[in-house]
Amino acid sequence: MRHLTALLLVFSLCVQAAGQAAEPVRPLRGYKADAAATERQWEEKFRALPDPANMREYMQRLSARPHHVGSAYDEDNAEWLAAKFKLWGLDAKIEVFDVLFPTPKERLVEMLEPVRFKAKLEEPALAVDPTSGQKEKQLPVYHAYSKDGEVTAPLIFVNYGVPADYEELLRMGISVQGKIVIAKYGGSWRGIKPKLAAEHGALGCIIYSDPKEDGFVQGDVYPNGAARPSFGAQRGSVMDMPVYPGDPLTPGVGATADAKRLPLDQAQTITKVPVLPMSYADAEPLLKALGGEVAPAAWRGALPFTYHVGPGPAKVHMKVVSNWDRKPLYNVIVRIPGAVYPDEWVLRGNHHDAWVNGAEDPVSGAVALMEEGRALAELLKQGWKPKRTIILCFWDGEEPGLLGSTEWVETHAAELTAKAVAYINSDGNSRGYIGLGGSHSLENFMSEVTRDIEDPETKMTVMKRRQLLDIRTMPDKRAEARSRADLRIGALGSGSDYTAFIDHLGVASINLGFGGEDLGGGQYHSIYDDFYYYTHFLDTTFVYGRTLAQTAGTAVMRLADAEVLPFQFSNFIETVKGYETEIKQAAAKQRSEIEEQNREIDEGVFVGTLDPKKPVPAPSKEPVPPFLNFAPLDNALDLLGRSVEKYEKSVAAAGDKASPAVNARLIQSERKLTEDAGLPNRPWFRHTIYAPGFYTGYGVKTIPGVREAIEQKRWAEADAQILRVSRVLEGEADLLEKAAADLTK
Amino acid sequence: MRHLTALLLVFSLCVQAAGQAAEPVRPLRGYKADAAATERQWEEKFRALPDPANMREYMQRLSARPHHVGSAYDEDNAEWLAAKFKLWGLDAKIEVFDVLFPTPKERLVEMLEPVRFKAKLEEPALAVDPTSGQKEKQLPVYHAYSKDGEVTAPLIFVNYGVPADYEELLRMGISVQGKIVIAKYGGSWRGIKPKLAAEHGALGCIIYSDPKEDGFVQGDVYPNGAARPSFGAQRGSVMDMPVYPGDPLTPGVGATADAKRLPLDQAQTITKVPVLPMSYADAEPLLKALGGEVAPAAWRGALPFTYHVGPGPAKVHMKVVSNWDRKPLYNVIVRIPGAVYPDEWVLRGNHHDAWVNGAEDPVSGAVALMEEGRALAELLKQGWKPKRTIILCFWDGEEPGLLGSTEWVETHAAELTAKAVAYINSDGNSRGYIGLGGSHSLENFMSEVTRDIEDPETKMTVMKRRQLLDIRTMPDKRAEARSRADLRIGALGSGSDYTAFIDHLGVASINLGFGGEDLGGGQYHSIYDDFYYYTHFLDTTFVYGRTLAQTAGTAVMRLADAEVLPFQFSNFIETVKGYETEIKQAAAKQRSEIEEQNREIDEGVFVGTLDPKKPVPAPSKEPVPPFLNFAPLDNALDLLGRSVEKYEKSVAAAGDKASPAVNARLIQSERKLTEDAGLPNRPWFRHTIYAPGFYTGYGVKTIPGVREAIEQKRWAEADAQILRVSRVLEGEADLLEKAAADLTK
Repeated sequence: MRHLTALLLVFSLCVQAAGQAAEPVRPLRGYKADAAATERQWEEKFRALPDPANMREYMQRLSARPHHVGSAYDEDNAEWLAAKFKLWGLDAKIEVFDVLFPTPKERLVEMLEPVRFKAKLEEPALAVDPTSGQKEKQLPVYHAYSKDGEVTAPLIFVNYGVPADYEELLRMGISVQGKIVIAKYGGSWRGIKPKLAAEHGALGCIIYSDPKEDGFVQGDVYPNGAARPSFGAQRGSVMDMPVYPGDPLTPGVGATADAKRLPLDQAQTITKVPVLPMSYADAEPLLKALGGEVAPAAWRGALPFTYHVGPGPAKVHMKVVSNWDRKPLYNVIVRIPGAVYPDEWVLRGNHHDAWVNGAEDPVSGAVALMEEGRALAELLKQGWKPKRTIILCFWDGEEPGLLGSTEWVETHAAELTAKAVAYINSDGNSRGYIGLGGSHSLENFMSEVTRDIEDPETKMTVMKRRQLLDIRTMPDKRAEARSRADLRIGALGSGSDYTAFIDHLGVASINLGFGGEDLGGGQYHSIYDDFYYYTHFLDTTFVYGRTLAQTAGTAVMRLADAEVLPFQFSNFIETVKGYETEIKQAAAKQRSEIEEQNREIDEGVFVGTLDPKKPVPAPSKEPVPPFLNFAPLDNALDLLGRSVEKYEKSVAAAGDKASPAVNARLIQSERKLTEDAGLPNRPWFRHTIYAPGFYTGYGVKTIPGVREAIEQKRWAEADAQILRVSRVLEGEADLLEKAAADLTK
Repeated sequence: MRHLTALLLVFSLCVQAAGQAAEPVRPLRGYKADAAATERQWEEKFRALPDPANMREYMQRLSARPHHVGSAYDEDNAEWLAAKFKLWGLDAKIEVFDVLFPTPKERLVEMLEPVRFKAKLEEPALAVDPTSGQKEKQLPVYHAYSKDGEVTAPLIFVNYGVPADYEELLRMGISVQGKIVIAKYGGSWRGIKPKLAAEHGALGCIIYSDPKEDGFVQGDVYPNGAARPSFGAQRGSVMDMPVYPGDPLTPGVGATADAKRLPLDQAQTITKVPVLPMSYADAEPLLKALGGEVAPAAWRGALPFTYHVGPGPAKVHMKVVSNWDRKPLYNVIVRIPGAVYPDEWVLRGNHHDAWVNGAEDPVSGAVALMEEGRALAELLKQGWKPKRTIILCFWDGEEPGLLGSTEWVETHAAELTAKAVAYINSDGNSRGYIGLGGSHSLENFMSEVTRDIEDPETKMTVMKRRQLLDIRTMPDKRAEARSRADLRIGALGSGSDYTAFIDHLGVASINLGFGGEDLGGGQYHSIYDDFYYYTHFLDTTFVYGRTLAQTAGTAVMRLADAEVLPFQFSNFIETVKGYETEIKQAAAKQRSEIEEQNREIDEGVFVGTLDPKKPVPAPSKEPVPPFLNFAPLDNALDLLGRSVEKYEKSVAAAGDKASPAVNARLIQSERKLTEDAGLPNRPWFRHTIYAPGFYTGYGVKTIPGVREAIEQKRWAEADAQILRVSRVLEGEADLLEKAAADLTK
């Protein structure tokens, strides 16, 4: 039925194109009218091909056993993937890297006082879940890249263990110095927690899943529902990826067999204290044994007792020892050569490695990418000739630290810098609404794409459905969702394989996926993220797998076939201006908060509200931040705004005229937003507009050099960074001026 | 030490008054300069007298046994109080009323399906708490004025059971018709919950204390801490007091022995369905047995499982049978006759009855009132002669339904209407900051009072400490707290004995108490609200008991001695204008929300965001509310504003001149704000500016006739009520015009 409808659509389009029907084919940016009609026909054919039944079958195969880096089934999956693509007639290769990947030898958390308790640190097999019992193949509950160590110390609860929590502890007059901290998952990427714990003098770090954010409060627990059960734990990497991702021993260069490597003790991205994750069943006795102050209201989780901060009387002994071997990783790289511009590359990727069985993460995204590849192979057989080279990437080693993508990008940096048009990433998929993030020069383009994809549940367009969701659930985005023809996209932080592309090289990137209707999340990085869970609680019919394949595949084809690359900078400049406004407001807010607190100290507010039964130290007065000079940035944005306008006018005036010269410039437009020196203290991150936060990890910091300098109260650095970003934007303006000139030649 | 300081203060004041020291005595509104100096001397003497040690002793006596209405110890306490005052040389009488007070004969909640469970409905004795074991004297866990009944039905969880929750259920497509609802305490006064349950067709109602709002989430539980333990339950009245409080059989008239009474089945204020309270230990198995939809995120409590709405599969059988006897109640009324204006009465009250032992509620307030009385008696012996009559009231039967105060006010309505200057209420006390609510014509006056009281912990004034708290914790009140010389006070809803005074008769009222530093609350309406709890977790040294006595006593003396009553209407008019603005904004918000929802329906938002796995009914379009005519209210406020200005000018011009005529008018100024017809559907409530909400119970609705008509979408009524309130305010303007003329005669 669905298949028939799709065919009918293609048929009616052909009739329109042939017979010049009354309703013209909607134009496509970067395409002449006839080219747009042809492109739309190929895209319609493409979108009819991905098949949910195939994706279900692929998922069952790929997630049948644990397949982390270094496991037999990881290699086996890579070979199977390569073989599949070869079978479909495509050029598929496996590229191997040699990376540091610690696996646990000893893991211990035990409470010595006031009562003895030993944490299980283990997820039990469930009778109903057929793959949950593959214990000998599973990576146990641990944090990859935790430092080895053994410590015994009083325990202290630090909420999420993010900077605001340490400020709150300071206000309460409590120090974590010499203690073992226990933090809830949430509030930041997990790797931030041991990093901050170490910065504040703690000796060790435990991270647990509180049922408030990730357990029975969210919904019925697995296997009755999709929420995390009491004994479920979240593995994960704690590598200090905001400094650099990828192999810790080869920063900035590919981890090839013969690469020059740092000695282990010089690797910057390994934690400074030992750290382990645990379930809420394991955490409960530890937290319950804490005394001291009752935790601030916002810190309290959902375990059934009063949360206290400590420190002590709970005293904990923890030990982490890893096997620090190097392991091979297997990226599967599928290449469809471009017929006209073979040296312009459109890249699309999803990782294939998992923490355990990984049905949702990453297999639900990988199977969509497989069907995209199969469908493109089918189009090639039917005579489709993409102008540009298309590269489909199945990354290995994403989970431990974006290893596969980072090492590949570092290895091929020169070629990618010259040739990469854009990178489109996914990392899993579920049921519901599209989620989109990426480079804002592709924002209008992605709107054009999502306007052409049908939502399988409502039969409206994916774009329309997302706008209706924004109208219903985001009152402050309502006016925009109603008035704008485009769909706004978020900026990218980190957490998936686009990182090296966008942040290190400056390749325009998009990350996408569907979700929002099912709860999910309770399986994340657990042995229960498997075929049974996915087919009971997530995109059970794989229709959103098909929609992901249709969306990403349409984007890839449209980029690959365009005469003029459909980058558009009007939304980019609007967005960056918005970031500048945000930063100005943040600076003003920070200034007024410090002024307010100083004033309150003078007024005696802290003396007047001090409870003699619970005395806490009064805060000290702080210097008021200086005003910063935003004028260079204002001027650069003004200049860039004029260049954007000029470029847009040239595009309109150029009409049907294609221009290879302008494409060469456009390919460099995102590269121009990077700076060789990189961000302060983390030179690997070279993009001046987007970066993951140094203290958020996944969460993006836009115009990061300026924003983080302000947040961390380094005023001179903030002024210097404003100048550097301004110069970068002037360079972008220059590029667009030249691109406009190319078009009008 | 403290006593010495107080004496020193008095001494230095005397020196100032006698020797005309450089710093003049601060003026007092309503007092000539010399009268102010004398008054201040008496007040200083007064404030040195209340003694924490006495209050501790009184509390131990009054709370030694359960003393609810109808109990032996309730009568015994009344007699002891009267005897004490007589001993101190004052005229004390007991006034007896004869009221309907149901006590339980049968209480049953049991689950029949899917598992059998019988709720204990009982709070256990604790070894550490010496009065908790007085079981034979304790009123069991129940809701007074629940209808008798026996029902068996599926259970359904309705969050707080307030109007917004029933709207949410409607959105989810779930009905409570024919079900037994279980609601959390909180979100409204408890009596609202069975009222709404019955309005929506439920057959019974259970109210439990969820540990999120009232249990281990708040802090360590009793007896280790002050939070409610799992087996602690909140008794309380569920009489429909927003219709009328007091004896259900004698609305509007005093429940004297020979009063004409309604037959029981015609009493409007008894619930329409049976209702019982329970602890979270009792509620846990019931809630855990619910199926159906997972409860909306905001509904979820802190019990350790996923909250579901139901209905069923839990099936509950509940039974409530009461003994519907009439019981005598004993108000203790102490009278200090006025030397100059004996027919102008300043009233001060606190109830003496409790649900069980009631150390905090009401004894901590009652013992402060006792010390006020003892101190006034002492001043009389020293030669102080209050101009006006002072009446100190220890009410009985407050807990079941404000019985003692309501019946007394109704009995003495004519005399009070003629003579009552103001009523000052308290209902318990704790440690920390002053909390003040009341008539805004007394707002400046109470600022003057709190500016003269020392906070025992910080030694700053009570007013200053409260302002510093507002600065620290209420950013939106910060500017006001900094810039204003006065302390703003809240409007009164209901929940204590001021209700009949202000709402029924229009006697200007103030309610006050201290708190905010200790957790408290876990003992509320439980057997654990006793001397052990109070002296371990609340105002353990009774220094805030003394501060309450100092504050309320100073207010009483200052009102009793003033030459011109210190009513001031500038803050009143400012406040009422603020209420009008709020109501206009609420009407505009309601209109725009309905318009928004209608628009979303047209846009297909609900179709586009419907999850086919969890289909819920789409809302229907609603008529857009009409614009209301606020012009009459604007005009009346404008007129009143001019009269207030004129009155203030006259006060300034009158200088030293006292005026008995103006006092007679001022006494009527709050009465003028009432209307004989009362509020729509509840004529007992006659104040046009303040009333407890029909669907909030405790929470105030200001300009209630207009506000509730808008909230309940009765537009014609809203317009009519605007006219009525406008006429009332015109009457107030007229009174002030005449008062101004009196002063300038």
